[in-house]
Amino acid sequence: MTRQELFTNIKKKRSFLCVGLDTDITKIPSHLHKEQDPIFEFNKQIIDATADVTVAYKPNIAFYEALGPKGWESLQKTLDYIPNDIFTIADAKRGDIGNTSALYARAFFEAMSFDSITVAPYMGRDSVKPFLQFDGKWVILLGLTSNEGFADFQNEPMADGKKLFEKVITTSQQWGSADNMMYVVGATRGEMFKEVRALAPEHFLLVPGIGAQGGDLEATCKYGMNSQCGLLVNSARGIIYAGNGVDFAEKAKLAATDLQQQMDEMLEKYL
Amino acid sequence: MTRQELFTNIKKKRSFLCVGLDTDITKIPSHLHKEQDPIFEFNKQIIDATADVTVAYKPNIAFYEALGPKGWESLQKTLDYIPNDIFTIADAKRGDIGNTSALYARAFFEAMSFDSITVAPYMGRDSVKPFLQFDGKWVILLGLTSNEGFADFQNEPMADGKKLFEKVITTSQQWGSADNMMYVVGATRGEMFKEVRALAPEHFLLVPGIGAQGGDLEATCKYGMNSQCGLLVNSARGIIYAGNGVDFAEKAKLAATDLQQQMDEMLEKYL
Repeated sequence: MTRQELFTNIKKKRSFLCVGLDTDITKIPSHLHKEQDPIFEFNKQIIDATADVTVAYKPNIAFYEALGPKGWESLQKTLDYIPNDIFTIADAKRGDIGNTSALYARAFFEAMSFDSITVAPYMGRDSVKPFLQFDGKWVILLGLTSNEGFADFQNEPMADGKKLFEKVITTSQQWGSADNMMYVVGATRGEMFKEVRALAPEHFLLVPGIGAQGGDLEATCKYGMNSQCGLLVNSARGIIYAGNGVDFAEKAKLAATDLQQQMDEMLEKYL
Repeated sequence: MTRQELFTNIKKKRSFLCVGLDTDITKIPSHLHKEQDPIFEFNKQIIDATADVTVAYKPNIAFYEALGPKGWESLQKTLDYIPNDIFTIADAKRGDIGNTSALYARAFFEAMSFDSITVAPYMGRDSVKPFLQFDGKWVILLGLTSNEGFADFQNEPMADGKKLFEKVITTSQQWGSADNMMYVVGATRGEMFKEVRALAPEHFLLVPGIGAQGGDLEATCKYGMNSQCGLLVNSARGIIYAGNGVDFAEKAKLAATDLQQQMDEMLEKYL
């Protein structure tokens, strides 16, 4: 998917919502356990309920990997079920030496046909570039994450006065462009979106941390939105576990629609 | 496995060899393709041929993940086949926010029962600590990697004059000890082992990059060995693809034994 297509979808749906399919077998409604593939059945109903107001789906791969081979089958079925015009993100946080990153790229982009994958930057250029060799596919590089551990390394100043996350954002622009790279910036970072936008005015940002983690949608949009919106704001638990009964999908739809309406206002105000 | 048990094995076998089971379906001998599970059959023969001179096996998870659900089955069978007294490393380079890292930890330590997993440090404390909650299990944190991209971030100076990899090694010692953490330091880093040993004198180091990547065993041992050896030196391609015919396992045994003999000399000289 191209940047323009993504923006077109955002304008059409008046939404920049990404739904995190972090589907945990211990948290899904009990009536689904009688299904042959409870994880896929859950995802299918969530997708049916939210696709109208959603521009991206992001399964966190850990949740599927934790289930062994069966988990990968549920993931593949989920991916196949997502409508083609919705952007898909493998939240895998991979990154290895060149030939191994190339293998991960083929696994997620070709075997599974995700549109994008999250990548960790610590190993540098040859761990990231192999993911950038695929037309229409995206790298979403960890920049400034939503968790408390962001303070240990990412937010630490380098010798030149810039922080590590700033160096990651600057250096990585030698490898890819706003047409095939995005950055992860947590919604919990508030005004720091200004610093990110100073370095990457055109890139899309994938923004986790709204909801359970306490991130602020208004601050994210005020400081992070650009002329093509430039934001994919992720919500997982707040949507997929909005209900826990037979009506879980209906509850998810309400929660997603509520966020979409807030996003509509933000687009009105800041785009 | 405890640090003392690992050192006991090293002394007994006069070896600190880790064999990288980076098994690529396109590179294994063609006669194995008729097997029901060619990847497992290859690994089984490699393990049979090298277990005598090996103290650790390290499958790089990318190679199995790339094959989808079947790959995970081959990985599980391989892990079950490795003798119990040999240390096992899931080279997965995972790292995510706390609850997700906990899920990865359960997947690799409980569902699959690896002794250790490689972890990327970029997301900081709460991405690493969940892996340290398991008795007898180890985190192997990326420190100074063997690839050229190490220069982009790891080797860059911070405001306090220390390099990022030094900060990673120092800060992470607040989370774990030499009894449950190791660091990845590439054999291509030569004298830089001195800087690592100044910060982590007692920790084991996992050392990739011997062989195909051009790392130097002598320099690694001269600057990196401590009183408990403190090194697990990995070789993958140089051993598992030493031959490509029906005698591939025999060739692998020769290559592994050759390295073990060099290691015996190094132990004589530097331990």
